[in-house]
Amino acid sequence: MLGTQRLPVLRMHSAGARADEDEVVVEEPLELRVNNSSIAVTMRTPGDDFDLAAGFLWSEGAVDSLDAIGTMAYCANEDDPAFKNVINVTLASGDCPAQVRRSGWTSSSCGLCGKATIEAIRQRVPQLRSFCAVRHDVLVSLPARMREQQVNFNHTGGIHAAALFDRAGNLLLLREDLGRHNAVDKVLGGALRGRIDTSGAVLLVSGRLGFEIAQKAAVARIPIVASVSATSSLAVALAEEVGQTAVGFVRNGSVNIYSHPQRIVDGISKHPD
Amino acid sequence: MLGTQRLPVLRMHSAGARADEDEVVVEEPLELRVNNSSIAVTMRTPGDDFDLAAGFLWSEGAVDSLDAIGTMAYCANEDDPAFKNVINVTLASGDCPAQVRRSGWTSSSCGLCGKATIEAIRQRVPQLRSFCAVRHDVLVSLPARMREQQVNFNHTGGIHAAALFDRAGNLLLLREDLGRHNAVDKVLGGALRGRIDTSGAVLLVSGRLGFEIAQKAAVARIPIVASVSATSSLAVALAEEVGQTAVGFVRNGSVNIYSHPQRIVDGISKHPD
Repeated sequence: MLGTQRLPVLRMHSAGARADEDEVVVEEPLELRVNNSSIAVTMRTPGDDFDLAAGFLWSEGAVDSLDAIGTMAYCANEDDPAFKNVINVTLASGDCPAQVRRSGWTSSSCGLCGKATIEAIRQRVPQLRSFCAVRHDVLVSLPARMREQQVNFNHTGGIHAAALFDRAGNLLLLREDLGRHNAVDKVLGGALRGRIDTSGAVLLVSGRLGFEIAQKAAVARIPIVASVSATSSLAVALAEEVGQTAVGFVRNGSVNIYSHPQRIVDGISKHPD
Repeated sequence: MLGTQRLPVLRMHSAGARADEDEVVVEEPLELRVNNSSIAVTMRTPGDDFDLAAGFLWSEGAVDSLDAIGTMAYCANEDDPAFKNVINVTLASGDCPAQVRRSGWTSSSCGLCGKATIEAIRQRVPQLRSFCAVRHDVLVSLPARMREQQVNFNHTGGIHAAALFDRAGNLLLLREDLGRHNAVDKVLGGALRGRIDTSGAVLLVSGRLGFEIAQKAAVARIPIVASVSATSSLAVALAEEVGQTAVGFVRNGSVNIYSHPQRIVDGISKHPD
């Protein structure tokens, strides 16, 4: 399996130890170049690399549509023909915006207090005005649907997932990566490349809903972002500001809604659109 | 509490919804400057910021001892006297090495295949030859001891921890942060600033034991690194190479040992040192 590797392990418990094999998630660096200029390196799980590259460029503001991307290709390595850890992307017109070139892979925080950071995002992201709504019973069913499809998690217990659902709870896309942000970038890039409309979708993540996850989803116009785990103060502040519904602790049939709760409705209420 | 914030929340379950308050973890950016030159920005939970700065500089190879650090101070902000999101560190001698200035906060991966990355680390980190050993029953008791002391986790359910224990299982240091790498940097910086010997210690982390965690611990000469969660292929390869004992899935009385298992002994065996 592409994303996992079998390694020797010594399993030790109180009654003794046993040599065995274990399947662990693969971690390798990926360098992203735009027009042959290096802009970022991330530690990722190989697989869906072009989705990752496209999603990163979209969610970090380097491109705003699939048409803005010219070509994507692995850079050849003469010593190792199988080497696939460098991707070059050519942009259809112009160069990569300076703030993306400076940002580094995971540090998209452009302001030094939450307020400045959110202000900058708000200027870049139009208000999310989608009236799409999801029923509470559909929302709470999504983590189990995501888990069913997490092939690599089921083998290793150590990989994150991000999944895009429509408001009826149908799975549109799922991607896995050992990095939380990479899993989201892979889903966004997959949606961009597959021309899937994200403006009425729900993004579910297996890890914490932090600021950068909320921000990436906002850039992709996703109105509802949910996590099986916790959120953070800055993620909630951003969601509140841009009109995004932020949901945490989707588990055991209940949810915590931190912003714009009008998009989560009970099964009895009339659907708002 | 410094690391958490109370926010309004709508708790919705199948029987209805209830407006309430929830305690969420605080997330704010921190900019690190060395000799007044910006080298990194990270999203972190405020608290133990000087530990974070010192630990980052140590684990990324900018300093190799406490004596190499001159002063550390928050940069003043005229508009907001309470602003504490920028730290300037002066080095006792010379400037910040170029590779640290270039690295960005979380992308310490210097090679583009695992092999090149590990080779670079191996050259910087002498082999970990410590004969320190930990009893299996002590090792499996550490997660509960860490959890007891996780003040912010117990309030929010959404913050990582890293803890340093001696081989008898005594807690030496614990730090929390919403970022996994930050929690480790805070512990390493706390050890450096408190002149705590790390060369015979066990580092336990609440999140995945990835490559960068193993690398930071190796730079700090920590011989045993353990996680309650999974590890990754590249973390195991690094640990194997530098002589570090990598342990995953410390839970329910058992452990998975991926490298150098001689440091984990059962209670009956004679202690090797």
